[in-house]
Amino acid sequence: MESFVIDKEFVDEFIELLELKSDEELASMLERLYPADIAEIFDHLELEQAVYTTSLLESDKKVEVLAELEPEVRVKFFDGFSHEYIATEFIQNMDSDDAVDVLSVLGTTEAEQIISHLPNKEDSLYLTRLLRYPEDTAGGLMAGELIKVNINWNVSQCTEEIRKQAEEVTRVYTVYVVDDSDILLGWVSLKKIILAKASTPISEIFDSNIKYANVNAEGEDIASVMQKYDLIALPIVDSLNRLLGRVTIDDVVDLIREEADKDYQMLSGISKVVEQKDKVWVLSKARLPWLIIGLFGGIMSSVVIGQFDGQLQENVQLALFMPLIMAMAGNIGVQSSSIIVQGLANNTISNDSVWSKLAKELTVALINGLVCSALLLGYGLLVGKSNGIMSTVSVALFAVILLAAIIGTIVPLILDKLKIDPALATGPFITTSNDLLGLFLYFVIGKMLM
Amino acid sequence: MESFVIDKEFVDEFIELLELKSDEELASMLERLYPADIAEIFDHLELEQAVYTTSLLESDKKVEVLAELEPEVRVKFFDGFSHEYIATEFIQNMDSDDAVDVLSVLGTTEAEQIISHLPNKEDSLYLTRLLRYPEDTAGGLMAGELIKVNINWNVSQCTEEIRKQAEEVTRVYTVYVVDDSDILLGWVSLKKIILAKASTPISEIFDSNIKYANVNAEGEDIASVMQKYDLIALPIVDSLNRLLGRVTIDDVVDLIREEADKDYQMLSGISKVVEQKDKVWVLSKARLPWLIIGLFGGIMSSVVIGQFDGQLQENVQLALFMPLIMAMAGNIGVQSSSIIVQGLANNTISNDSVWSKLAKELTVALINGLVCSALLLGYGLLVGKSNGIMSTVSVALFAVILLAAIIGTIVPLILDKLKIDPALATGPFITTSNDLLGLFLYFVIGKMLM
Repeated sequence: MESFVIDKEFVDEFIELLELKSDEELASMLERLYPADIAEIFDHLELEQAVYTTSLLESDKKVEVLAELEPEVRVKFFDGFSHEYIATEFIQNMDSDDAVDVLSVLGTTEAEQIISHLPNKEDSLYLTRLLRYPEDTAGGLMAGELIKVNINWNVSQCTEEIRKQAEEVTRVYTVYVVDDSDILLGWVSLKKIILAKASTPISEIFDSNIKYANVNAEGEDIASVMQKYDLIALPIVDSLNRLLGRVTIDDVVDLIREEADKDYQMLSGISKVVEQKDKVWVLSKARLPWLIIGLFGGIMSSVVIGQFDGQLQENVQLALFMPLIMAMAGNIGVQSSSIIVQGLANNTISNDSVWSKLAKELTVALINGLVCSALLLGYGLLVGKSNGIMSTVSVALFAVILLAAIIGTIVPLILDKLKIDPALATGPFITTSNDLLGLFLYFVIGKMLM
Repeated sequence: MESFVIDKEFVDEFIELLELKSDEELASMLERLYPADIAEIFDHLELEQAVYTTSLLESDKKVEVLAELEPEVRVKFFDGFSHEYIATEFIQNMDSDDAVDVLSVLGTTEAEQIISHLPNKEDSLYLTRLLRYPEDTAGGLMAGELIKVNINWNVSQCTEEIRKQAEEVTRVYTVYVVDDSDILLGWVSLKKIILAKASTPISEIFDSNIKYANVNAEGEDIASVMQKYDLIALPIVDSLNRLLGRVTIDDVVDLIREEADKDYQMLSGISKVVEQKDKVWVLSKARLPWLIIGLFGGIMSSVVIGQFDGQLQENVQLALFMPLIMAMAGNIGVQSSSIIVQGLANNTISNDSVWSKLAKELTVALINGLVCSALLLGYGLLVGKSNGIMSTVSVALFAVILLAAIIGTIVPLILDKLKIDPALATGPFITTSNDLLGLFLYFVIGKMLM
């Protein structure tokens, strides 16, 4: 891989050059670096140093670095500039989706103050509108910069339009074709434009078969359509099919990663997306909520078991297998719920009714429950444990496995129906409630059988 | 969203038309459908029906549908055709990365037999070579179809080359620039080619600043570079920097999803990537391994607790808080390990030494341990539980939280060093071992304090 890592040494060297004000050396260094790399260096700079470094960047790169900054670094960074400077030097030169991303870390009031300094009123209207779309919808993801041509034009008019827009639209993948009312009719690839004669009418070479999405579509749906159909950009339209913007694959890649990270952390009992390199108190705060739920569940368990303490006193053997029951209840619950949650997230869930999904989960649980209970009984025979305790534990294990599968399947489906993120049903929540119910069932069965 | 869902009704209607042999209606239906949608219909067809449907597809679409089929459907589908037909009708018309994907579901022998029927010897050599690269490396992901131009050419020669290659390279994003020995020098965008004069030398408009990767690079590294730098395609070179192919973002998107799914299922205790719509026995088989490990852990726990049964008999209260200790040990272990695993997967882990990572995790555990132990003590005071048991449980809880954090941090880091997938350290594995150690610690502390 030709990419290199921004390590501590490199940053130290950079800061030394900053202190020496070796502008020439710095500028040549910056020229060789990609915006994403420069943004990483900014993580380690003081505000003053960051402002100084910015002054050494050429206009295009300045803007790209800003777009790559981590949100919290960006907020700090903005303090070094006036609203007018931010508007005219940064926002004006950015793709509108990046501009919205960049501004969204500020409050609405401050964002709109900055926007008001844009020289072009149309730009500021468009940005204000974009800022109002929820972040994870087509509107929140899209950019207004795209090349569109009228169906009545020919290839040379189209090339002329690309030339006009070239500075503003950094990456042209496709040219969209619209009618006089801006209604999306289709697309034409750059390849076709290069290969066609200048006088060819667009209507002859354009392709009317085009995927598009409404501005209110969910980000996750946009992601799955673009993934399914291998699209690099997806045009976004309003309810009258007028072309508003396009979502590009790079934003979708980020979205897919973020969604996956969110689900993963939910499953692991962490309430917010955090990274190992975050500060200690951020990490601690993200984990405490689930730990406290777990603690509460543990206290509840002690109350449940307390109800059966006579039975425990009589037969202390029962205590030995509590961990087994709990661990299995927890595992089964997490397995069942995560398969449902992942199916919902990836749209790979069957269209069957809730009942048939449940029937399927129960069949799986039945098989796995029989296997596990049989293994446990076998172990009991092997080591010569008393039949009473082993048959009790085996029967209870089987019952607990079925119960845990039912809860693990139903809870995420219910949450999804209620429009609550079903991923909430994975992780400590399901483990804790399965622990409780599992233990209760275990003691009830123990009371009946022993 | 303009996309529509292939549901049971639609498939039934399609099959009815097939049985009626309404070729015209079928053809017009197929024309309106995207390859990914047709592939979904194929999931529900008998081999004979699938072969018949294929005969109605135009050549381009035929190939795209094949690339979109699920691997197991594709294997079945191949049975309907001769090797020669597969080679000349499918493989020859595919991008080489799709051809390799398609062939990789067959054994090497069968794949090479099919390849031998390709009319162009160069193609079959290139494919045989691609088939040898491991699936998740740059070599396994790349396609040979790309537009490359010589640095000594001008724009009109470049356009001519695009025209020549246009049929083979379906999507042109960038044109790569090489020297006489095929060494990668840079790239030029289609936009620039459209806007430049025909006589402009490529050397004047090309950009030498280009990201590329070696053919042996890991797929995950390719994915993070392309995500970090917002790339649509990444050129792949050999050790002499000769251009071999390119990896496109659509394959990387699939890879990112697969990797995320794999880690998610590992964390949820499922040993293979499965979907809710898979068959019962597939689901059952994927879950049993971890359940049996959990069962084994539970049996081990019963042995550990058995060592302390005198103590339990004496003070049955100790049993009441076993679930609490276990649940907390499990949660902390999963939290710590998953943050490390995700950091390793996303390359967002700090560059500090193992010791300083551990120190950080321990600090977080210290804070969370103090909070949880204090809450537990508070609960004891509130309900008037005996001081003896509550202080024992609180001290044990604190110790167990620290221990679980250490194990959760160290195990994935060790696995990663040993080149074993660190995700193995999440899920039931870590929960089970933390349960065991946690309970042991609990009883030892109980013995000392009570």
